[in-house]
Amino acid sequence: MIIEVPATSANLGPGFDTLGIALNMHNKVVIKKSNFFSLSIKGEGSNRKRFKNNNLFVKIFYEIYEEITGKRDNFRFEFYNKIPISRGLGSSSAVITSAVAAGFGYGKGEINKQEILNKSLEYENHPDNIAPAIYGGFTVSVVDDGKVYTQKKDIPSTLQAIVVIPERAMSTSKSRTALSKEYAIEDIVYNLSRSSFLCSAIFSEKWELLKIASKDRLHQDKRMSNMKKLFAVQKSALDAGALMSTLSGSGSTFFNLVFTKDAKNIANFLQVKFPYFKVKIVDFDNIGLKVNF
Amino acid sequence: MIIEVPATSANLGPGFDTLGIALNMHNKVVIKKSNFFSLSIKGEGSNRKRFKNNNLFVKIFYEIYEEITGKRDNFRFEFYNKIPISRGLGSSSAVITSAVAAGFGYGKGEINKQEILNKSLEYENHPDNIAPAIYGGFTVSVVDDGKVYTQKKDIPSTLQAIVVIPERAMSTSKSRTALSKEYAIEDIVYNLSRSSFLCSAIFSEKWELLKIASKDRLHQDKRMSNMKKLFAVQKSALDAGALMSTLSGSGSTFFNLVFTKDAKNIANFLQVKFPYFKVKIVDFDNIGLKVNF
Repeated sequence: MIIEVPATSANLGPGFDTLGIALNMHNKVVIKKSNFFSLSIKGEGSNRKRFKNNNLFVKIFYEIYEEITGKRDNFRFEFYNKIPISRGLGSSSAVITSAVAAGFGYGKGEINKQEILNKSLEYENHPDNIAPAIYGGFTVSVVDDGKVYTQKKDIPSTLQAIVVIPERAMSTSKSRTALSKEYAIEDIVYNLSRSSFLCSAIFSEKWELLKIASKDRLHQDKRMSNMKKLFAVQKSALDAGALMSTLSGSGSTFFNLVFTKDAKNIANFLQVKFPYFKVKIVDFDNIGLKVNF
Repeated sequence: MIIEVPATSANLGPGFDTLGIALNMHNKVVIKKSNFFSLSIKGEGSNRKRFKNNNLFVKIFYEIYEEITGKRDNFRFEFYNKIPISRGLGSSSAVITSAVAAGFGYGKGEINKQEILNKSLEYENHPDNIAPAIYGGFTVSVVDDGKVYTQKKDIPSTLQAIVVIPERAMSTSKSRTALSKEYAIEDIVYNLSRSSFLCSAIFSEKWELLKIASKDRLHQDKRMSNMKKLFAVQKSALDAGALMSTLSGSGSTFFNLVFTKDAKNIANFLQVKFPYFKVKIVDFDNIGLKVNF
């Protein structure tokens, strides 16, 4: 079985724990039944011992596989990882969703994306990365009674992403603790209205409205204060013509949505201005998780 | 000059101070230059002295008219009001938007809906009622740097509203004081995700998603506790097949969105169950404010 799953950028400014978008940058895992257990990692994470000894994918896969089949068979797992780890590009959601897909795939012989999504929520708690990882495109999700409901919009090829990836990670847990415990109604309405406006703009393809729609007052500034250079990244990207520029998940990557025709110019400008960050132009992924039996 | 402006229902559940929708229930005002000032009111509000002696429409109209022309001419104002007052159906937004339109109309000889919207915000503070009053349809609005940005979606005739109007008002200020001062992030995400999901559902006409999308945790329950019967109205409407059932603005009216084919049955059911409330089937208004010079 071969599973591919895309990187994702969550929040998209105001859409805290709600909005996400899938990028054409994938992790791939090849799984085969085998006489003995083995595991190899190429690419991102290949130098981390922890990923070999206590592998989250393997743990989730066996939980589901054993629950369905009652057996603990041996498998060979080959990971080919392109999604940077702990950079706000959904690397752990990629692991979770692909592990759940593999568990169901080997356990039942078939997969159902909605079932994978609901099961993945048990491991991730928020739907904002797992939904686009599974469905691709732009997604808006709610959790109701433990189930995830997602609406998806394909992103046309006239748009691309520019990701600005710092060398250094910002840990999700540290980044989450930086947040307030309570919020004033003005700031809530600020984000709630913009997240709603952003969805309306994307579903009706009014890209020029994204700049106003993508502003945030609930989390970005607090998180970015852990890496102050990101304020300059955001300002530079918007000044250079990005349609929106938001902290990707809990960081440290910055996500920029641009017209494809402008992508090279904006990316070059950012790379020259921030030489110590990795600047990449990436297509959007409208397919999401792929499983080949 | 004749101006017509529709009733509006705001919030629509999770979309606090953000979402609104226009109803085919109008206030009309006829204005003529005259040798002396005079004012008449027919319909809603005709029995209230305050509306004659200290009329909000007249106050706003003259503020704008005098600012533009430098003159205080006399006019005759005839109000024909169908929007119930202080019932959460946007009666004050109707007054404000039509007064602003009249002020610009007589002052400049032309009107511009975006200009009326931005000016109306100075009198109303929130865009959720004034935006649909002016543009009609379903609207999602943000305020940025003192200006209102609105996206609009026409509502098809396959949908209708059923409004359940209590005899008694709930004052907006009292209803607003009932609200919390601060909110937990779980409740914020609950509403933010649903308001975003609701916009996505409406812009892509996925009406069956409105039931989950229209839930709220920020304001409705607190406000409805001033009139506990409203909980039963909401439950009955949803049980009877309403696509969504939300407190209209700050109440006391309940707004229900239904398929036109189901409207009569649901309305009859509600009227029988709640005989002391006025139950009305209303079309949506996709036009908004109309001005005839």
